[in-house]
Amino acid sequence: MPFAVIMAGGKGERLWPLSRGNRPKQFARLFGKSLLAHTVERILPLVGSERVYVVTQKVYAPLILQELPFLSPENLLLEPVGKNTAPCIGFAALFLSHFFSPQEIMIVLPADHVILDTERFRDSLELAIEVAESGDWLVTFGIVPNRPHTGYGYIRCGELFLEDPRGQVYYGAGFTEKPSQREAEEYLRLGGYLWNSGMFVWSARTILEALKRWAPEIAEGLARIAEVLGTPKEVKVLEEIFASFPVLSIDYAVMEKASNILVVSGTFGWNDVGSWESFSDLLPKDASGNTSLGECVALESTGCIFWTKKPVIAFGIDNVVLVEEEDLLFLMPRERDQEVRLLLQYLRERGQEKYL
Amino acid sequence: MPFAVIMAGGKGERLWPLSRGNRPKQFARLFGKSLLAHTVERILPLVGSERVYVVTQKVYAPLILQELPFLSPENLLLEPVGKNTAPCIGFAALFLSHFFSPQEIMIVLPADHVILDTERFRDSLELAIEVAESGDWLVTFGIVPNRPHTGYGYIRCGELFLEDPRGQVYYGAGFTEKPSQREAEEYLRLGGYLWNSGMFVWSARTILEALKRWAPEIAEGLARIAEVLGTPKEVKVLEEIFASFPVLSIDYAVMEKASNILVVSGTFGWNDVGSWESFSDLLPKDASGNTSLGECVALESTGCIFWTKKPVIAFGIDNVVLVEEEDLLFLMPRERDQEVRLLLQYLRERGQEKYL
Repeated sequence: MPFAVIMAGGKGERLWPLSRGNRPKQFARLFGKSLLAHTVERILPLVGSERVYVVTQKVYAPLILQELPFLSPENLLLEPVGKNTAPCIGFAALFLSHFFSPQEIMIVLPADHVILDTERFRDSLELAIEVAESGDWLVTFGIVPNRPHTGYGYIRCGELFLEDPRGQVYYGAGFTEKPSQREAEEYLRLGGYLWNSGMFVWSARTILEALKRWAPEIAEGLARIAEVLGTPKEVKVLEEIFASFPVLSIDYAVMEKASNILVVSGTFGWNDVGSWESFSDLLPKDASGNTSLGECVALESTGCIFWTKKPVIAFGIDNVVLVEEEDLLFLMPRERDQEVRLLLQYLRERGQEKYL
Repeated sequence: MPFAVIMAGGKGERLWPLSRGNRPKQFARLFGKSLLAHTVERILPLVGSERVYVVTQKVYAPLILQELPFLSPENLLLEPVGKNTAPCIGFAALFLSHFFSPQEIMIVLPADHVILDTERFRDSLELAIEVAESGDWLVTFGIVPNRPHTGYGYIRCGELFLEDPRGQVYYGAGFTEKPSQREAEEYLRLGGYLWNSGMFVWSARTILEALKRWAPEIAEGLARIAEVLGTPKEVKVLEEIFASFPVLSIDYAVMEKASNILVVSGTFGWNDVGSWESFSDLLPKDASGNTSLGECVALESTGCIFWTKKPVIAFGIDNVVLVEEEDLLFLMPRERDQEVRLLLQYLRERGQEKYL
């Protein structure tokens, strides 16, 4: 049976103020519970709670245990500091390899994604697990695009590796950064380009070997951590090594370089909820393209995104994002949703930390 | 000692949703209490509560007595239906003339205006009362403009009638409708054009005579009401006569036609709070011209009006009105603030009365 490694240390700043400093995006509630709880509950039937490990930072530990009451505190892997996904995944792989076995399969999932079709997702996961068990593969999920999205990276599919009732598996033939509108349209027309979901299945051994080859500075740090794992020195060495790690994504560290990559194509309604724009993909739209979490009357208004508890009456308003939180209201043009970090920086500089 | 006649039967639809169907603008709270309470408390030192009469419709009577706990229910003058200010004022004048004396001076005030400088206002009122007591004058207040406002009617001043430490009194030389931007700028440049405030001081006899001359259809109705005032027939006849009255403002019925008009110039921070735009005159603005009732951080945002309890964070938003009520949020471009009635009509047609 595989392990699940849930990456829950991110900040999700672009989704402010749904994502706040003391309650990042993975704790935001959507469809009745937090994204983290959704993520874990989706895979519980496949792995059982004792095989779920959540990688996070100390400050989020209480919130995580509150959201996942069935989780033992020992199943939290605490990073001293977040350094993006490569150190996070490497540390989890090292942990599983050390305390269980290098052969263990790990399902690596960000805590803050949305998946609409749980059944299909579990089918895809099972397929990926079987493939990862069959050999030395780095298995990733590529989402079949339904529109020319410019906010995601893409995976180019190579030859078909396996055809299965649960989905297709392709050889990975390259990763590309977020494309321009024209490129994204071309990808959609050509086919064979899937959204890079950032979800993976592999054995601890396979990813550790890949790190050794493609990101030796991380592998070396992990080797030093391995020497003290489970000893009183662990905390101090972890701190030291994590401080020395570069901020590095697993895509950049490994996936863009390795050749033993397989891609499971997914059609399970995936969304990374990366920015406010995402909600217009996730929630129903009215005839004028307005997306609203709750009640809304929009007159002569188009393309708005309303994330509010209270009903919204909009009159003559176009392409605006309006967010209502307990303690504030937030208003911005939809096209600036990638610039939210700029606003947060401004708030920080003005000493308005209470809003962060 | 004069009487105060407070006109509190309006709907204030353009100020929706601060003004709601069951709680029109005069009941909206601003600076700690309702506009109605502010209006009455401003003139209490001049007249005493037993000489305050509030003209309204039955449906608003409980709210009015709640807002003005010192007011006796006998001091409510109930119109069977609102027909704008001419019938309202005529009825009040008839009442005072009948139960007190035709010589009584009445101060006529809309219940839903804002006046920032109470002391100056009382000075102007005293001056107006003295002038109204001195002869057969229709005394009105003209507000000295501080900008080329296109949302107000203007009064053109004629010769100086009286110079007083409390203000100037001019002969009225004509009323004009809301001007164009260019006309308003010209008025400001020329001087001698004052905003028509809709507040008046005169004797009951003087306004009743003016109605007789310039609006005989109203005077005739009032004469029939006079026959039954204080008798069991009053309610029925009032209903009948009010139903027959045209919808008519006192400006159109009398002020634009009469020649015995005097204008007291006022500089007491008057605002009719006629639409959302008014708040940008009433409340302080930040350096980018944003007006906010409460806390607000506006980055790369200009000319917005935020009427909310919660703090507003705006990023890259221009000239938008955002209103937060207990049960809804309202968003519109500032330049459409004269069209709110259109929106209300749309809500009505869609069966969304709960929002009205």
